[in-house]
Amino acid sequence: MNNKLRIIPLGGLGEIGKNMTVIEYGDEILIIDAGVMFPENDMLGIDLIIPDYNYLMDKRDNVRAVLVTHGHEDHIGALPHLMRDIDAPIYATPLTAGLIEVKLRRAKLENDVDLITMQADDVLQIGSFKVEPFHVAHSIPDCVGFGITTPVGLIVHTGDYKFDHTPADGWPPDFAKLAEFSERGVLALLADSTNADRPGWTKSETVVGEAFDKVFREAEGRIIVATFASLISRIQQVADMALKYGRKLAITGRSMRDNTKMARKLGYLDIPDDLLIDIGQLNSYAAHEVAIMATGTQGEPSAVMGRLATGRHRSLSIQEGDTVVFSAHAIPGNEEMVFRIINRIFQRGANVLYERIANVHVSGHASQEEMKLLINLVRPTFLIPIHGELRHLKQHACLGESLGIPAGNIAVVENGTPLELDEDSLTIGERMPGGYVFIDGAGVGEVGWSVVRDRDQLAQNGFFIAMVNAHNGNVIGQPDIVSRGIINMGEAEDLLEGAKDTIARVVRTYADSNKPLEKPIAEALNRYLYAETGKRPFVQVIVK
Amino acid sequence: MNNKLRIIPLGGLGEIGKNMTVIEYGDEILIIDAGVMFPENDMLGIDLIIPDYNYLMDKRDNVRAVLVTHGHEDHIGALPHLMRDIDAPIYATPLTAGLIEVKLRRAKLENDVDLITMQADDVLQIGSFKVEPFHVAHSIPDCVGFGITTPVGLIVHTGDYKFDHTPADGWPPDFAKLAEFSERGVLALLADSTNADRPGWTKSETVVGEAFDKVFREAEGRIIVATFASLISRIQQVADMALKYGRKLAITGRSMRDNTKMARKLGYLDIPDDLLIDIGQLNSYAAHEVAIMATGTQGEPSAVMGRLATGRHRSLSIQEGDTVVFSAHAIPGNEEMVFRIINRIFQRGANVLYERIANVHVSGHASQEEMKLLINLVRPTFLIPIHGELRHLKQHACLGESLGIPAGNIAVVENGTPLELDEDSLTIGERMPGGYVFIDGAGVGEVGWSVVRDRDQLAQNGFFIAMVNAHNGNVIGQPDIVSRGIINMGEAEDLLEGAKDTIARVVRTYADSNKPLEKPIAEALNRYLYAETGKRPFVQVIVK
Repeated sequence: MNNKLRIIPLGGLGEIGKNMTVIEYGDEILIIDAGVMFPENDMLGIDLIIPDYNYLMDKRDNVRAVLVTHGHEDHIGALPHLMRDIDAPIYATPLTAGLIEVKLRRAKLENDVDLITMQADDVLQIGSFKVEPFHVAHSIPDCVGFGITTPVGLIVHTGDYKFDHTPADGWPPDFAKLAEFSERGVLALLADSTNADRPGWTKSETVVGEAFDKVFREAEGRIIVATFASLISRIQQVADMALKYGRKLAITGRSMRDNTKMARKLGYLDIPDDLLIDIGQLNSYAAHEVAIMATGTQGEPSAVMGRLATGRHRSLSIQEGDTVVFSAHAIPGNEEMVFRIINRIFQRGANVLYERIANVHVSGHASQEEMKLLINLVRPTFLIPIHGELRHLKQHACLGESLGIPAGNIAVVENGTPLELDEDSLTIGERMPGGYVFIDGAGVGEVGWSVVRDRDQLAQNGFFIAMVNAHNGNVIGQPDIVSRGIINMGEAEDLLEGAKDTIARVVRTYADSNKPLEKPIAEALNRYLYAETGKRPFVQVIVK
Repeated sequence: MNNKLRIIPLGGLGEIGKNMTVIEYGDEILIIDAGVMFPENDMLGIDLIIPDYNYLMDKRDNVRAVLVTHGHEDHIGALPHLMRDIDAPIYATPLTAGLIEVKLRRAKLENDVDLITMQADDVLQIGSFKVEPFHVAHSIPDCVGFGITTPVGLIVHTGDYKFDHTPADGWPPDFAKLAEFSERGVLALLADSTNADRPGWTKSETVVGEAFDKVFREAEGRIIVATFASLISRIQQVADMALKYGRKLAITGRSMRDNTKMARKLGYLDIPDDLLIDIGQLNSYAAHEVAIMATGTQGEPSAVMGRLATGRHRSLSIQEGDTVVFSAHAIPGNEEMVFRIINRIFQRGANVLYERIANVHVSGHASQEEMKLLINLVRPTFLIPIHGELRHLKQHACLGESLGIPAGNIAVVENGTPLELDEDSLTIGERMPGGYVFIDGAGVGEVGWSVVRDRDQLAQNGFFIAMVNAHNGNVIGQPDIVSRGIINMGEAEDLLEGAKDTIARVVRTYADSNKPLEKPIAEALNRYLYAETGKRPFVQVIVK
């Protein structure tokens, strides 16, 4: 066992290996990325999800480094949690390190964590691992993948990537490095599968530049562009257009303003000072003289776009003649909320452009033809599809097979499944228990599926609680009843009367019995409420 | 006012005019369709939504007829509710009438409602209206649109349509009739906008036939096809392939079995008796000798596919080598659940084909080029985009303008907004109050937004209820506390102790006061629970 390399993707049933991957040989461990997942619609009340890294807790002293591919939340968001438990340096490129620093500072961890800035093409010797970050293109600048020379062979991990020949920052991916790895011989390729069901080649960021040029050329009123706070290249593109067409640019949303500031300081954003204005200065300019960037492309009600849609923004409101651009892809599960916000902005008199009807966004991930190119460039012995739901990994595996990789050399596994590699074999281990850790309010892991299930029952059916003072078969006074989420208050009076009658009937029935009354009353109330409302609320009865 | 024609789409903020449209002249009213909407993800606990037809209640004696375009739920699902309030005949084509009959029978209304079967090309004189149903192609057979000659002019309503030259049932849409209407002169065109953001031409149903041929030619194990219960043409296509490739066909899911039976009886499905087997007979055949049709393409946990994904189906389970086909489009809001089910079926060893990776479904609605063809065929004076969210209607309006219809002749309105037409003008009226009527458990309209908001608070934060017996600044005994949905039970003990201390402190503080204790205790508990958990549960306190 000791002479095998273990690779373990961690997380729940969602995207595999997206948020955290463990590379282990002997008593040495590397972690690649530590990101958050966003809760699905039925994970009620949950704020965020972090990978379950319980596996590492017994081995925390073995962790040599946390290697970070890029600065998106799903790759760095869990670092403030992980770094409380792990004492190892973080390696990141300058922009990514800048974004991580902001997070560590908010978590008051900036003095406890060793954050090391690396560059693409560095060669880092970390324990027995030789780590070589190489540049890839994605939708945020300064992204890398890793070549990791281990005692059993060379592993290549792509991070999130696409083969964009004309990215917004002018720095195309390092094809030569991939070819060079290939010459050395690659044991295993861990590759991004996000778009494995998209045929063809993902469009270049240049396409978005052209679409924005058209928007800025034609818009007669204000232009409001919504995108992810971390989409630095999109901020650059919009700033370029504002400059070209003589508009001032206001940036709203705290995270986007923070990121812009940091990226300008580090030289990843080239925006002249006098292009930027404060949101409060908008009224000093005519509508055709301003552009605004904002957050809230995923339908979040409290982000800028959500507040604009419902007229709840403090200093900004949609006006007739505005052109609003949603420059982002709606993540599955968010479409409904995103479209509702788009409809409401239309309702307020703006024109709205979004991915479906204009090229105002392109994916940051490789499509099928790029995935094939990657495989043929790297020519790995083993293919390990990562970064995608199971359906994407399966599709990626099909692509690999179509290029001649034997099915037995491709490992499609779920998070928590260890893979063991030596020079000429790959074995799939037993899946470990665990999966999601919910972040809920102030708590980490204090809310599990049982609480979420309770919330689901409350969400569907409400609750009904009765306190009864019973004596000798009679109800003394009136029962106290607290209830929410069943039916409209106005219509609840009859229901309450009926419930009181039900309680009195049970109390009478059990007059001569010594049995506790809680259960029979609750059962009778359950039956009564279901018959009256068709709902099964959470019922509890307290008898004094 | 009396010599104007009123057209009123009814429903909420969702799809406009999809579910019900009112056509009114003087004291005569026609209703087109009466369908249900499906609740969005944040309409917690709601089963279904019907249009708010309060406007009709004062005018119920004026309603002359309910005209139905086709048999999908979003066009007929509200009939059992509407027909309790309205006394007018329903007009529908044979298949649609068959589907309506099933609904009326379940609602015990079959003897109270006059259900009149019409045919495409009939001419019906209903009061002052001459109604001419004409055949259109969609994803269910026997669809019609309506030409309605009113005292102010000819109105054309498309229903749901696409211009499929090779539909599954071999009956293409009636282009000649549209041209003939055009010759007569069309005052207003009410046209389906569902796919207004899709460029090009929607693929023909034939494409799906070819995709299924490939699936049946290549699959070595069982084939399981999931689709909508009402997608009669898809059932025909799968039956044809089963026959061609020598497989028996089992149909599972009550609604799909009922629809198949009815459609075969009426001659809309051509399936030989000996092709069909019962789901219980599957074990008598080899895997390559059977195909199965099932419901549950929208991620519903209780439909067949949902139960198969989690191993909860009574008589069927996914096995290695199965080919599972999702032959449907996931409605926005459902993608996340659909993909979760797809991932789980992959997990169980089946191969899964879905819209993204194979042509196993095509839309039933016209795309942009078809919408343009329709407008140029019909050449209406006024264009009224219907059947779509506001974003679709706006896009449809742009298409109309690009074909030369003046912007002032196009009415993009929301549900509840009356349009008034005479021979040469169209006026947009004031939007009426109302919108959704929620169907929830056994109740119709007994649950409104306030209940849904309560459920949302419960879903996000849970509840905490305390009953306190207080006397002279002391808590007598222990407070009774009922709480759910806040944190895990195991971790709640400290929280409960802290809550009891909080209660005791407030009771002591108010020892010498005559003020009621409920409010100060509840406020203190609110603060305490937020500090400890970061959540704001529903808190109520009862003091004895």
